[in-house]
Amino acid sequence: MSPAKKPKAEKAQKKSARAVEPEEETLAFEEGEPEADAPPAKADGGRDDTRAKQRVSAEDMAGRQREISVAEFFTKNRHLLGFDSPLKALLTAVKEAVDNSLDACEEAGILPEITVEIRPTASGENQNRFRMIVEDNGPGIVEAQLGKVFGQLLYGSKFHKLSQSRGQQGIGISAAGMYGQLTTGKPVRIVSKTGKKKPAIELEIVLDTARNRPDIVSRAEFAWEAEHGTRVEIEMEAKYQKGMRSVDMYLKQTAIANPHLTLHYVDPGGEKVDYERSTKQLPKAVVEIKPHPHGVELGRLIQMLQTTSCRSLSGFLQEEFSRVGSKVAHDIIDAAGRGLSEKSYPTRIAREEASALHEAIQKTKISSPSTDCIAPIGEELVLAGLKKEIEADFYTAITRPAAVYRGNPFQIEVGIAYGKPGGVGLELNEEGRITKRKKDSEASEALVADADEPIRLLRYANRVPLLYQQAGCAITKALIQTNWRSYGLQQPKGSIPIGACAVMVHIASVWVPFTSESKEAIANYPEIQKELRLGLMEAGRRLGTYIRKGQRLRKEFDKRSYIEKYIPHIGIALQEILDLSVPERDGTVKTLEDVLHKSRKF
Amino acid sequence: MSPAKKPKAEKAQKKSARAVEPEEETLAFEEGEPEADAPPAKADGGRDDTRAKQRVSAEDMAGRQREISVAEFFTKNRHLLGFDSPLKALLTAVKEAVDNSLDACEEAGILPEITVEIRPTASGENQNRFRMIVEDNGPGIVEAQLGKVFGQLLYGSKFHKLSQSRGQQGIGISAAGMYGQLTTGKPVRIVSKTGKKKPAIELEIVLDTARNRPDIVSRAEFAWEAEHGTRVEIEMEAKYQKGMRSVDMYLKQTAIANPHLTLHYVDPGGEKVDYERSTKQLPKAVVEIKPHPHGVELGRLIQMLQTTSCRSLSGFLQEEFSRVGSKVAHDIIDAAGRGLSEKSYPTRIAREEASALHEAIQKTKISSPSTDCIAPIGEELVLAGLKKEIEADFYTAITRPAAVYRGNPFQIEVGIAYGKPGGVGLELNEEGRITKRKKDSEASEALVADADEPIRLLRYANRVPLLYQQAGCAITKALIQTNWRSYGLQQPKGSIPIGACAVMVHIASVWVPFTSESKEAIANYPEIQKELRLGLMEAGRRLGTYIRKGQRLRKEFDKRSYIEKYIPHIGIALQEILDLSVPERDGTVKTLEDVLHKSRKF
Repeated sequence: MSPAKKPKAEKAQKKSARAVEPEEETLAFEEGEPEADAPPAKADGGRDDTRAKQRVSAEDMAGRQREISVAEFFTKNRHLLGFDSPLKALLTAVKEAVDNSLDACEEAGILPEITVEIRPTASGENQNRFRMIVEDNGPGIVEAQLGKVFGQLLYGSKFHKLSQSRGQQGIGISAAGMYGQLTTGKPVRIVSKTGKKKPAIELEIVLDTARNRPDIVSRAEFAWEAEHGTRVEIEMEAKYQKGMRSVDMYLKQTAIANPHLTLHYVDPGGEKVDYERSTKQLPKAVVEIKPHPHGVELGRLIQMLQTTSCRSLSGFLQEEFSRVGSKVAHDIIDAAGRGLSEKSYPTRIAREEASALHEAIQKTKISSPSTDCIAPIGEELVLAGLKKEIEADFYTAITRPAAVYRGNPFQIEVGIAYGKPGGVGLELNEEGRITKRKKDSEASEALVADADEPIRLLRYANRVPLLYQQAGCAITKALIQTNWRSYGLQQPKGSIPIGACAVMVHIASVWVPFTSESKEAIANYPEIQKELRLGLMEAGRRLGTYIRKGQRLRKEFDKRSYIEKYIPHIGIALQEILDLSVPERDGTVKTLEDVLHKSRKF
Repeated sequence: MSPAKKPKAEKAQKKSARAVEPEEETLAFEEGEPEADAPPAKADGGRDDTRAKQRVSAEDMAGRQREISVAEFFTKNRHLLGFDSPLKALLTAVKEAVDNSLDACEEAGILPEITVEIRPTASGENQNRFRMIVEDNGPGIVEAQLGKVFGQLLYGSKFHKLSQSRGQQGIGISAAGMYGQLTTGKPVRIVSKTGKKKPAIELEIVLDTARNRPDIVSRAEFAWEAEHGTRVEIEMEAKYQKGMRSVDMYLKQTAIANPHLTLHYVDPGGEKVDYERSTKQLPKAVVEIKPHPHGVELGRLIQMLQTTSCRSLSGFLQEEFSRVGSKVAHDIIDAAGRGLSEKSYPTRIAREEASALHEAIQKTKISSPSTDCIAPIGEELVLAGLKKEIEADFYTAITRPAAVYRGNPFQIEVGIAYGKPGGVGLELNEEGRITKRKKDSEASEALVADADEPIRLLRYANRVPLLYQQAGCAITKALIQTNWRSYGLQQPKGSIPIGACAVMVHIASVWVPFTSESKEAIANYPEIQKELRLGLMEAGRRLGTYIRKGQRLRKEFDKRSYIEKYIPHIGIALQEILDLSVPERDGTVKTLEDVLHKSRKF
């Protein structure tokens, strides 16, 4: 408590006093201890005399310093986690739950089948209340972990691991539960079953924000028809609405990027939408890798040297890093000099030597990190996903080779769907004739813009659609910096191009650098920016070829339909002049048409 | 450690095994305990037989779950804190240190005088290394707190307090030190002195990231000429560069918003820049307030009820919230019903009753939170700041009345500087004549755009300039949504307006909702958006009046200079016709000029 001079301070200060944490012993020196009841201000000598305005002294301030629990931090900053508005909160919660389900299924080698339900639970005057239910057929979670997985921030299995997954922070689903609890006071309900012969465990969990720990408020066992799986229910204040950034759109886009997923969705109106999987092939299993030497900062290297269990420097380099064999280790140590040898004892290496070692690592040629830690969707499945959910005239997909930022492998994929059926939509049929393509449309309208609107950008990170913060995302930046005019689209200066087009961009990485914990936009690392641009340009060139062909086709089509219109008349004229029989006339017309088409082949 | 089936996993898993934290006892149920050496995969029954691809079981996964230290989290996500590039890292570190210095000085009632130095410390081949030194004349920090303040994330005095300050999270300066340590392996050096007769304490601190705790590596006492103050030195990998988002620009903008600050800056080239304070008046002292009832979510209300030391509901409402007296408390309890009375014992109130209480609070009319917890700059000082650092033809400033989002008071200020000296720059002199204003320019060029460029937007939060993430900021959004064409500027659709203009926007609040921990952009709360728009419109209208007047003046000026050119000739003509003497002619010319000017007064 700080009883300092604060004349206008509101009545009681009891609350802050109560919350002050007991002082830790680690830093107790002989003087200057913060005292809860330190005498105010004047304690420290002459300095006050010179100023009229003395307000608070160093001692007063010390009394107010305290630790902040990470859960308190995120409760106050819930917009960092994507819970700033009731509309976004619903989406974020669904996203975190579905991400976890997909990760668990893939890791366990199970073809995911997920049910999402948004159930209105209006009570009293508050109509903005929903229960979100997400159930999967994943491997389940063992009971000892359930509490922490759903009721503790910064707890998880994916953070310390270098391999691609949707989750990475150990924050998301606990944060969703925390938001539900904050807005409705109700605990999170979890049901999980890890095997056929095991009971389903049902827990109700509350997160103790001051300590960032789960409190289990009820526990039951029961029989569940499912063999294994997890079900999470969170009641929350939220708002449901259709549109580009809705739960519906998120699920649709999830289906595009996860063709192995079967998804059932019950919206608040009780309507059911089913997305059936289009492939039974799971994404390839990803392998965990060690850090790549080129991505390790000096400070981290020093820390690794201090904590390694390796007993030689050469062993350390080979054991703790990827892509370092005995030859590379030898080269590094050689380049470092400073008396370092392959047998140097890692924990005894001082800062200066470590610094030399770090410089030597940067100078040594080391092969790029292995890419079996990331699993891109693949060109074929990107195309399949786009075709399944977006109706368009032209599709293309690119998977770039893997690249590296800060030692983390990543891979960019770009897909394009262009043209509204009924738009430019012309095509050559088998006989080489140009025909208008016919399609019934409207279904995918939302995903392909109109010809005079900005194109739709579908952003993905590790197969998860990103619906918010488009303006602040590296993907958007790369899209804007690409010159789409040279590919046949309109593009106002410094803006998203205009056209009946959807561009999908996917970044797969062992560690996606998001701009905030809510994982809505990609941070602007130069290496990522470069790969994004290359991917967009490659796909753009293909689009350009198609559009130019389309424009040529359009012109051809106009010319030909004009000529074709008159060919029968020419036939009749020829018949009269040359006195042809009817079959002769028709044969001549046919020949004329064939010659016409042949002479204009592409 | 997870010895599961991972055929291609890289050599050793030792590292992750070492880092597994001891299991907590809280959740030990009778089965399903995660075992470090659990038998892989096949453990759970029939399910595996049906699938070829079994990869990992629930038990395997459980073995990998663990806690993530907040310092580890931010090391991996250092872009969240503003340390994603060497260029930005330098700025972020300076910003965190200067923010802390200013906060401390103001809280202690000391007129701040701060020295910032960026010293190149290139070593070996690495040229991108600098030592940042920030020294203030603040109250100092008592020794017992020094370690934690500079070496522990989420530790501080400002988080739990509802009153305006630059810092709020208890992350910034420790994160800067952590970044320095990560990139150079060197500790942070701190010197602090809390009073004339006390010794200066010098500490070198390293942050233990796995535990998020400071390790003090050296300690010394010495005599320091300063009476009191703090000096922090951090060596880091960084890049120095001039420009819109440089340390130089940050300091210049800081001087604009903090006219009471004297700042000395030594750049890496050794050049000195001094910003002298233009006022000796400190910002008004801010008062800490209690949460406002309308901003408290149900979950938080329940938590407050459970932990209060008040023994009656009425007392609880009056003690724990601002703006609740006995009358309002009575009204709330009355409206809640459900058997609640003024004497109900807070800790015994169940969820359903708390929910009714929460609804009743929302329905009860309660005065807006007191605004003495925030200290806007004020129209006068905004103008003074703009005029001191930006040379322009027209200035205006608006301080909006305080408003509230999520129970947090905030206040918006908008300042505009328009016109490059030498541009439209026309003015009426005392005699009512229009003259061109003369000024020597170039100094403030960077802060006022050219007439054909997007205007410069200077964003501030609690007097701190925000230099990054402009695109993702609520201020930018509000600027774009304002119709500047009606105020005389050009504005491409959906873009920042064009013109020789700088717009400064300041949000002062007890809790600024930033979009990330690096505090670079404001989150888009609707209440804040609305106030921003109102402030921009009000300032915009004034600008519009000036610009229109300028345009009229320009026309007048052209006309008059034309007429004035001929008045002497008319004089000579009249002299000849009417046979006037020279004094008579000059008198007539003067009269004609006066009549002309009078007839066109504004």
